[in-house]
Parts: sequence; structure tokens; C-alpha cells
Amino acid sequence: MTNGYIRLKNPPSILSSYSCVGSEEKKGPLGDRFDYYSDDNRFNKDTWEKSESEMQKIALFGAMQRAKINDTEIDILLAGDLLNQCVGSSFGLLSYDIPYVGLYGACSTCALGLALGSALYSGGIAEKIGAVTSSHYCSSERQFRFPLEYGGQRTPTSQWTVTGSGAFILGDGGNVKIPECVFGKSLDMGIKDINNMGAAMAPSAVQTIKSYFTETQHSPADFDMIITGDLGYEGSDILKDLLLKENIDIRSNHRDCGILIYDRDTQDKHSGGSGCGCSAAVISSHILKELNSGNLRDVLFIGTGALMNALTMCQGNSIPAISHLVRLTVKEV
Amino acid sequence: MTNGYIRLKNPPSILSSYSCVGSEEKKGPLGDRFDYYSDDNRFNKDTWEKSESEMQKIALFGAMQRAKINDTEIDILLAGDLLNQCVGSSFGLLSYDIPYVGLYGACSTCALGLALGSALYSGGIAEKIGAVTSSHYCSSERQFRFPLEYGGQRTPTSQWTVTGSGAFILGDGGNVKIPECVFGKSLDMGIKDINNMGAAMAPSAVQTIKSYFTETQHSPADFDMIITGDLGYEGSDILKDLLLKENIDIRSNHRDCGILIYDRDTQDKHSGGSGCGCSAAVISSHILKELNSGNLRDVLFIGTGALMNALTMCQGNSIPAISHLVRLTVKEV
Repeated sequence: MTNGYIRLKNPPSILSSYSCVGSEEKKGPLGDRFDYYSDDNRFNKDTWEKSESEMQKIALFGAMQRAKINDTEIDILLAGDLLNQCVGSSFGLLSYDIPYVGLYGACSTCALGLALGSALYSGGIAEKIGAVTSSHYCSSERQFRFPLEYGGQRTPTSQWTVTGSGAFILGDGGNVKIPECVFGKSLDMGIKDINNMGAAMAPSAVQTIKSYFTETQHSPADFDMIITGDLGYEGSDILKDLLLKENIDIRSNHRDCGILIYDRDTQDKHSGGSGCGCSAAVISSHILKELNSGNLRDVLFIGTGALMNALTMCQGNSIPAISHLVRLTVKEV
Repeated sequence: MTNGYIRLKNPPSILSSYSCVGSEEKKGPLGDRFDYYSDDNRFNKDTWEKSESEMQKIALFGAMQRAKINDTEIDILLAGDLLNQCVGSSFGLLSYDIPYVGLYGACSTCALGLALGSALYSGGIAEKIGAVTSSHYCSSERQFRFPLEYGGQRTPTSQWTVTGSGAFILGDGGNVKIPECVFGKSLDMGIKDINNMGAAMAPSAVQTIKSYFTETQHSPADFDMIITGDLGYEGSDILKDLLLKENIDIRSNHRDCGILIYDRDTQDKHSGGSGCGCSAAVISSHILKELNSGNLRDVLFIGTGALMNALTMCQGNSIPAISHLVRLTVKEV
């Protein structure tokens, strides 16, 4: 490993994936791409936290069904979410009989799980790995910001936490491989606006993307798409500007899961979607479908996370961020 | 990997470790064993959360100094704590230039970091790995239970969150090796008493210990010590009873970090110590010193964690728990 970058000797493939979303995500441009949705965002549960856990349970179940395996065939489960003490995952995945590693990378957790799972596969530690993440608009709002009932006004740079979950099974024999990844370093550029996560996270995505191109000698044009997790409109513009100053031009092939998931004109989500479930739902459905159908052949996915909590904001701290990268490809590499 | 158990093909060793504690821990039976302490538990910081982060910073710095390396020589950092969104680690380790993987395993995180780090080393993914965890009595009390100022009465089975941090550097060339580990499965036996974490966690330790002995054909007598993270007096009794029913007798060589760290007669800590920092501080100081001096030669360390949060308790959920195991040995295995 050099500077967080690793080229895997024995790259795993994605055997299956499954996505699960709420009503707003279903109404968005990618609505038809998701595997499961709940009209009332409750998933038949009586608290938002239980609803979020239920999404993880459904997503992993769906991914296992597609891979035609049961839980005892998965060696290890890597999971996380945004809730305090990661209870979305610990409760959601409790019914499965799988060794469990809890991760916390905020909204970067989907990429972190895929990167770590790929490393464990390549190192011969595990043969089949589950990676699951989620977020829920209603559980996140009351935990990080205000209870929904308060009806707080949102600022133009604020993002909308995606109600969604995505599960992946890694192993041998799938079409889409993960041959490389970059484990990111945390970075704090002094942003203190809890309603501008894009600005807090963009410099960390710059750092990780720069590491990748420095270590590999690849250039952005080598990829069909360079997709970030949830920088939104604000953060994506900052990312492209900052990378351009480093002579890395991703303007033509950059996409952001937080931008793709909602329609800007008909769904008023300000700077776009965010959350652990944003990239998990978009990558596990839309992007993998595009890779499997041949519309995309080589993609860099960079999960972006902001590592503050509500208390550190009250105490006047700025927002550290982290970004992890995985390459998703159907090419022989 | 079978049932979470893995025998590592290329076991790492512990190159160095460093411990950092508060005043109560310094006064306890292991006081002289710890490397650094703060008389007022503040570590020169103005909030308890910053004090906790500072402990992680100091612990990793101390471990790097002992290993005679700097941060750019560490491939990857595995860290976690009990605070919401793991801010103890994300803020505490921000100043180091190391790729960062955030973990959440509650009080099992020290063992989880050592197990995962050992797996990444053995798999050829990373050559030098940092593993850091912490907890702080004052930040934990107000987050999980009551603000200190409230002066809440504690029940007899309640445990005292240890103010402490422990850092480890894994790599090649140390005396104490990690040849085997077990990644635990989460387990919920229906305990709903937030003040009896020992009872919630003990069955999960039973499950992990049983997996180890089943997969290896070892017996408890093969080890000088079988040490759990923070079951305390209550949980340790339950553990020994439950294991005895499985014909696994660990009564003579079982120890618990939560029992060792405070004096029962002179320090009124009810059922003992707990927290991410409890096992991290005890293993990184006392246990490693005993292994390095030859007083101990072969130890099983089982980190025990409870995966609830304050809200899941209010919503009437029971407490899921998880235990991860690492073998620490100076023997050739």
C-alpha cells in the first residue's frame, strides 16, 4: 500500500447487489432502477430507526437471493450507517448468522466497505463478503439537525439525506471487478457550516482522486465515469474547480450520486442528496446495471464522508472529511 | 475463514504500544503500568470530547515513538471509540498523515482493530498498521446516560466507563505475535437493562470463545490467560457459568480488563470498568508487558461490545452484543 493506494493481486468481483429506497428516491430519475421501495418510508416499522434497519435487512436478503447463497456462506459482513453507534446496521443485520465488522466512515462507508472487503478477499482472508450501508432522511434529520415536526428552513447549500440502502456481495465469478482502491486520509479544511457538507467533503475527494492518478499514472479520460458519493451541486463544482487547479480535468465524465438521485426541477432538494444510503443505492442499482449492460466499462467511485457529529458542531469545531475510492470495471486489468 | 475464525498465514507482531489514562485509572492496581495520565482527566483540553481525542493523539504518538517510525510509515490506521459518529477518533487522529478506516464495535473495537489489522497484514495488504481506541468517563456518561452534574444514582450492576486510550503498531519483527483471530457475530439475548452491560455482552463472549475452541481443538488449559474486555464482575460470572455448561472451564485462568483496572475495595466502581478504552489501556500496557517479560506466554483476548444507543434503549429495544477474539502469543506457533 502506498499513500492509501493498493492494486489488488487477486481482485474480487461483485456477485450481486440489491437496493432499497424511500418514496422520494422512487419518484426521482433513477426510480425504476431501484429494487425495492416503501411508499411511506416506514418499511412496516414503527420508528424511523427501525425503518432504516429494515432497509439493510431487505437489501442484504435481496443481494443474497440474487447470488443464490444464504447467510452461512458469507464469511464476513462489513456494514455501517450514520446513526449514533451505527445502530442501523447492528440492529438491521442482527438476524443474519455472519461475522460482523462495524464500520464508520459517514457517507463514505459504502466505498469503505467495498474497499476493505476487496482487500480482505485479495489477501485470502475471506472468500465471500457482504457490504451494506444505509441512511434514512427521517432518522438523520432528527439526529443531526432538527426533528421533522420543527419544520426548519433549509439553506440553499444543504443536502437531503437519502432514504436508501445498498447491499453488495463480493466474491469470485462476477462480471464487475474491483482491481484497485484508495483508502483515504481524513482532512479538515476549516468548513464550519453544517449545511454545506459538499464544501467540507470536496477537498478530501480531491486528495483521494489525486492520490489515485499519482499512483497509477492513469488520467481521467481513461474512465467512462468518475462518480462521487454525495458532494451535491455545491461540492461537485468545488471538486471540479480544485482538481482543475491540479491539472486533473474531470468535467466531462464526473457524476455525483447525490445529483443523479433527485430531479432538480421537480424535487426541491436544494444541493442534492447525501447520506450513507445515497451512493449505496445508486451504485448498487444504476451504476452496476450500466456496467453489467456494457453502457459503462470502467468507473471510479469515490465515497465522500463528513466526520463531525452534532456536538462537535455545537462546540465550534470544523468538519473533517474523508473519501475512499474503488475502481469498478468490466475490463481485463 | 470458518465461522469467523481465521488462522493467519503470515501473522503480524505487535511492534509497540502505548497507553494513556485518567486519574481514577492511575490510582488503580495497574496505575504504574500505564504510560501517560492526566490528573484532571482533561489532557489540557476544554471539553471532554476534545480530552478524549487528545488521548488517542497521545497514544498513537507514543506508540510511533517506541516503534521508531513516523506517521508516513504507517500504511493504514484502524480506529474507533464510543462517541456518536466516532468523533473521538476522527478528531483525535486528524493530525496524522495516515489512511484512516473508522471502526465501530463499541467496547470490542480494540480487539476488532487488532483482528482486522492482523488480517490486512497477513493478506499482504499493509505492512505497518496502527490500531487505536479510546473512551472517556465524562464524555460517555453524558452521551449514554446522564450529564455528570445530574449526580444520578448508579445500580450495583452498572460499570464505570474507563478514561483511557491504547494504541498499537502491528508489523514485522516484534516479540508478541497474533497468529489467530475470531470475528464475532452479533447476538441479542434480550437484556434491556442499560445498567447491566455485562449480562448483555457475556453470551456473545461465550459464542466467540466457543467458536475458537471448536475451530482449533485447543482447550482453555493451553493458555496462560483468557482475558475479556469489559464484562465486569457481573458479566464475568455469567461468562464462566455459561461456558461451564458447554464444558469449557475457564475459571482458573479467566481475567477481565474491567475487573483488573480498579480496586474493588478502595474504588467504588460497582461492577467494574468498561468502555473502548478499558481493554485498550489494559492490553496495551499490563498484558503486553507481561507477555514481553515472559510472565505470560500465550493469551486469548476477547473484546466485548454492546451495540445499542441511547435512543434504541428509549424505544424499548434490547441490547445486541458482539465479541471479537485475538490470540497474543510469544510462542512459536
